[in-house]
Amino acid sequence: MFDILIKNANIDGKIVDIGIKDGIIKSLKPNIDESSKETIDAKDKIVMPSFCNMHTHAAMSLLKGIGQDLTLMDWLQKVIWPLEGRFVSKEFVKDGTTLAVAKMIKGGTTFFLDMYFFEEEVANVVEEAGIRAGIGFGILDFPTKVASTPKEYLERAKYFVETFKPSDYVIPVLCPHSVYTCSKDTLYSVLELSQKLDTYIHMHISETRKEVDGVIEKYSKYPLEYLDEIGILSDKFIGAHGVHLNDDEINIASQRKITIAHCPDSNLKLGSGIAPIWKYVKHGVRVALGTDGEASNDNLSMLEEVSIMTKLQKGYFEDSTAMPINIALDIATKNGFEAFNIKAGVLKEGYDADIIVINPNNDIANIPIYNEKALILYSLNESAIETTIARGKILYHKGEFKTIDIEKVKFNVKSWQEKIKNALT
Amino acid sequence: MFDILIKNANIDGKIVDIGIKDGIIKSLKPNIDESSKETIDAKDKIVMPSFCNMHTHAAMSLLKGIGQDLTLMDWLQKVIWPLEGRFVSKEFVKDGTTLAVAKMIKGGTTFFLDMYFFEEEVANVVEEAGIRAGIGFGILDFPTKVASTPKEYLERAKYFVETFKPSDYVIPVLCPHSVYTCSKDTLYSVLELSQKLDTYIHMHISETRKEVDGVIEKYSKYPLEYLDEIGILSDKFIGAHGVHLNDDEINIASQRKITIAHCPDSNLKLGSGIAPIWKYVKHGVRVALGTDGEASNDNLSMLEEVSIMTKLQKGYFEDSTAMPINIALDIATKNGFEAFNIKAGVLKEGYDADIIVINPNNDIANIPIYNEKALILYSLNESAIETTIARGKILYHKGEFKTIDIEKVKFNVKSWQEKIKNALT
Repeated sequence: MFDILIKNANIDGKIVDIGIKDGIIKSLKPNIDESSKETIDAKDKIVMPSFCNMHTHAAMSLLKGIGQDLTLMDWLQKVIWPLEGRFVSKEFVKDGTTLAVAKMIKGGTTFFLDMYFFEEEVANVVEEAGIRAGIGFGILDFPTKVASTPKEYLERAKYFVETFKPSDYVIPVLCPHSVYTCSKDTLYSVLELSQKLDTYIHMHISETRKEVDGVIEKYSKYPLEYLDEIGILSDKFIGAHGVHLNDDEINIASQRKITIAHCPDSNLKLGSGIAPIWKYVKHGVRVALGTDGEASNDNLSMLEEVSIMTKLQKGYFEDSTAMPINIALDIATKNGFEAFNIKAGVLKEGYDADIIVINPNNDIANIPIYNEKALILYSLNESAIETTIARGKILYHKGEFKTIDIEKVKFNVKSWQEKIKNALT
Repeated sequence: MFDILIKNANIDGKIVDIGIKDGIIKSLKPNIDESSKETIDAKDKIVMPSFCNMHTHAAMSLLKGIGQDLTLMDWLQKVIWPLEGRFVSKEFVKDGTTLAVAKMIKGGTTFFLDMYFFEEEVANVVEEAGIRAGIGFGILDFPTKVASTPKEYLERAKYFVETFKPSDYVIPVLCPHSVYTCSKDTLYSVLELSQKLDTYIHMHISETRKEVDGVIEKYSKYPLEYLDEIGILSDKFIGAHGVHLNDDEINIASQRKITIAHCPDSNLKLGSGIAPIWKYVKHGVRVALGTDGEASNDNLSMLEEVSIMTKLQKGYFEDSTAMPINIALDIATKNGFEAFNIKAGVLKEGYDADIIVINPNNDIANIPIYNEKALILYSLNESAIETTIARGKILYHKGEFKTIDIEKVKFNVKSWQEKIKNALT
């Protein structure tokens, strides 16, 4: 007996049933004749792998869209950092992450990679919600609420990794914030710790031109050359943004098998620029997709993110054949899982059942349909996502959250909103 | 007694009521104490001017998203033109336009500018649906189903303009297709006719680099220089796309007071490029916004269009202060109406009541809300649009179309979809 049976799924033009048990796609073939605890009829719907959001700061959902039309530095120094200084706490991180996780589940995301503070709270929320995440403490050279020195940050990160060993839900990650906020010594310490504890490393890289220029000035090297010299780049390194990479750096990224977590929406909105990721992909770099935090996006929709990503590459390169549909969808789904060596993001027997079901039929905006994948990329909005399954468990179905008390989330958000609004005026 | 009274609308932080009668905003002030045939409570909702879609080919909604990842020429020559040759008819235009108009109304658009064939059908659909449109026959040098010679096209266009005089719903427009499909003689004839009949002119301009290069090769001038020499550029000229304009052309556009109908989604997806419209705006050019047809977008969502437009300018210029919120929203609303000298797109007494009401409260994706305009630009999707009012008439409210038989639309679309699908295989 299956846990879930998805009937009549259209996979690349072939109608099949998908039998799920113990979190795994056990059977994928036409007309499965076996009983199941739950059955979902996907006739005339779209069944696809769930999304993998490879860069975010989930708790920042409580600061959604705060501060508009400012320079990056004004936005950070005059708006975001003061608010974070005042409000970020364990409670803030717990409530903000719960909100973000609810949004992500509703939007069809079942894995996210998070970098923020008080990450034990993030791990607890993730385990309760039944979603999966790579989670890491931001490591910095300057003091914040959680630590004062690089040594203290590293100790906290070490403690976190040792406490939350890789589980079904949580993959602890080391998160040196960036080249411009971590000294060479800090990065060497992170590298050493990551080797000792066998962890992934997640870091902001080459987000703005100014940042790149700063690295060149300080180290006489481009950022990825500098990081490569330290030895930190490997297939366990996930760099967020990577907007401004030159050809040598693209080669380094490809040779070291790092993953670039592309965040087009945030890069555009913050004026960071347009990452030419189609070029990276053609040079063999693994590119995955992230939304960044909601303070700079201002949403967590992977459907919107993959749509913008795809169109942006075609427009940037003035080539409508750039970034074809299947590669675009892989970037939003499979590639993120692959970066973490997780067997998911593909609808095949033996893979984890991280699956979404989309119902395009209730919105006249979606018809006529000639190509379902084009519909996903260029037309659908999140309201069409009907079911989100993470490792064989239904987390969301037809408006209902199965693991999150959504009324409580709304209540908490309202209370934070009032406090934060008062601080703004 | 008002026709419609909108209670508790938050206009730039001030709570007011909006009394509408005979299509006009008659009263806009706090606590209106007067009866009304219909009352809409906008408490905790967002009230804003409706959208103005300044470039589309509405009937092409029946060809939504056909042909993906092809070069522009392959897409046109191998996919779109053969399908149009086979299917475009009065019936196709009627059914396709009805579909598009339903989508636009649901998406909060109350004015669109259309260029296609069999435009009498478009005009009839528009009048029945109670939306408003600038409508024009495409004028070409080469033969299609509707005409064989420029002279025939011009005669049809003349007949159309004379039959559908400017009314409450329809503004007939002359639509020479483009510089590369209309000879100099044809353009002179269009200009003469437009002066005689006192009409607006709508035309594709500088959509791709190839097109610009072709004009330079043929006429030794940049497209807007060439058009200016002909004398066709004026405040009654609306040029679609305008992706590749040099500084001299930007000055011409500004001096001649033409309107550029920017179509970022289509420009990206077709690989045409990124129009630096923030530069145009700063040089005093009136920029409005359009979706283009659904075959190349692949949707008619002005909410998505304005979002992409805004982020794209910030990213392209690597300046997060570029294209601030209020200018962006004006481009999507007011500027289009202004181009047609229509007093709408602004919530003020004496202006036409073209208004939408948005309810962000049913979707957890939208909270918390600190800035309603940022929410519109960066987060909302169409499903949050609850009410569309065009010239004081409710066309759509809480899922219900007031002027369109939506089940009939769906039935007709299904039938076209089957026929067109068969032709594709």
